[in-house]
Amino acid sequence: MTVQLSNETIGRRGLMLVLSSPSGAGKTTLTRLLREQEPSLTLSVSVTTRPRRHSEVEGVHYRFIDVETFTLMRDRGDLLEWAEVHGNFYGSPRREIDKALASGQDILFDIDYQGAQQIRANAASDVVSIFILPPSIPEMRRRLERRAEDPPEMIARRLRTAIGELERWREYDYVLVNDDLERCFERLQAILVAERLRRERQPGLVAFTEGLMDDLRRSTS
Amino acid sequence: MTVQLSNETIGRRGLMLVLSSPSGAGKTTLTRLLREQEPSLTLSVSVTTRPRRHSEVEGVHYRFIDVETFTLMRDRGDLLEWAEVHGNFYGSPRREIDKALASGQDILFDIDYQGAQQIRANAASDVVSIFILPPSIPEMRRRLERRAEDPPEMIARRLRTAIGELERWREYDYVLVNDDLERCFERLQAILVAERLRRERQPGLVAFTEGLMDDLRRSTS
Repeated sequence: MTVQLSNETIGRRGLMLVLSSPSGAGKTTLTRLLREQEPSLTLSVSVTTRPRRHSEVEGVHYRFIDVETFTLMRDRGDLLEWAEVHGNFYGSPRREIDKALASGQDILFDIDYQGAQQIRANAASDVVSIFILPPSIPEMRRRLERRAEDPPEMIARRLRTAIGELERWREYDYVLVNDDLERCFERLQAILVAERLRRERQPGLVAFTEGLMDDLRRSTS
Repeated sequence: MTVQLSNETIGRRGLMLVLSSPSGAGKTTLTRLLREQEPSLTLSVSVTTRPRRHSEVEGVHYRFIDVETFTLMRDRGDLLEWAEVHGNFYGSPRREIDKALASGQDILFDIDYQGAQQIRANAASDVVSIFILPPSIPEMRRRLERRAEDPPEMIARRLRTAIGELERWREYDYVLVNDDLERCFERLQAILVAERLRRERQPGLVAFTEGLMDDLRRSTS
């Protein structure tokens, strides 16, 4: 065997990239950039019982289902994680995720800390979790106010919720301060590049290194 | 507190980057590139009892000491790791390393698997270990032969030693196949960027997030 191999051609297991942050830290923009510039990263499409926002597309941003269907899926164990946020249910369908990981596909999760906790509990070794912090509270408030879709009482609610969310940074593998969008995004990409190169995410290394050692024994004997 | 903070200004603990590979995988070149392009990365200068090569500078590539001095340092516990390779002793002085890490300085270790094992045993949470693999054995042999300094019998010896070294990839956090120097180096850099952003390497996050939460409570009460 004298074929040259690179990390691209070595069999790899996919990872679950879990991105969480309090509202207003810039996570939505970072998620959009990741999807645009990392086409190999599939967004996990959650199911949810909350009403569709004007800008959202069924099956792209969420699969919008009713509470009965959600309860059925959850009780059958079809959800890798689920959570109730502001009175609505959210969940990640398990089957599609399992299949994607086995075929080397990475999956992006744009979920809150409750979902992140459950995913870690269900599939720790496949998870790479990143928490995004705002650089300051005034900046966080500005970002929330710039998002014109939400009414003022929703902004106030999000800020109060953010106190409990902020504390969760301690549960994540990586913590990024989003003071500069471009730089923060480059760091996100670096984490993705690095985590794909972890030994345990390259099951194909077993066969590759065995081939190298066979060749080496043959050429030195 | 309304000062904006980035990951740069948050107090950080240094890391130990441990780079290992069999001879001929390109580690020496990668180490040189890292030192040129990552000035914040200090090279750990090992002590060694082996004779100085023509191209080597005392205190830069190694501190060349005699066996008696080495034994004294080792027995006093002054070495974070030490090893005997091809009949010579090598070791990493502990005191400078401890000081550098506490001040947020990263340190590069260009050592073999025996040294890597000891460093992991002595300071696991500070270590990021990377194993470099050659893309093929013929390519590895070509690289060894291109290094004109070594006599042919040394090349044969290095190839035989490489069999035992290759197997050690299973002990490392990351595994890179060095089929393309530029790409391999970019990946090394990505690992460094990512590992610096790990939560436990940013002790300053405790004070930063407490400040954010104080501000948030004040602004929503």
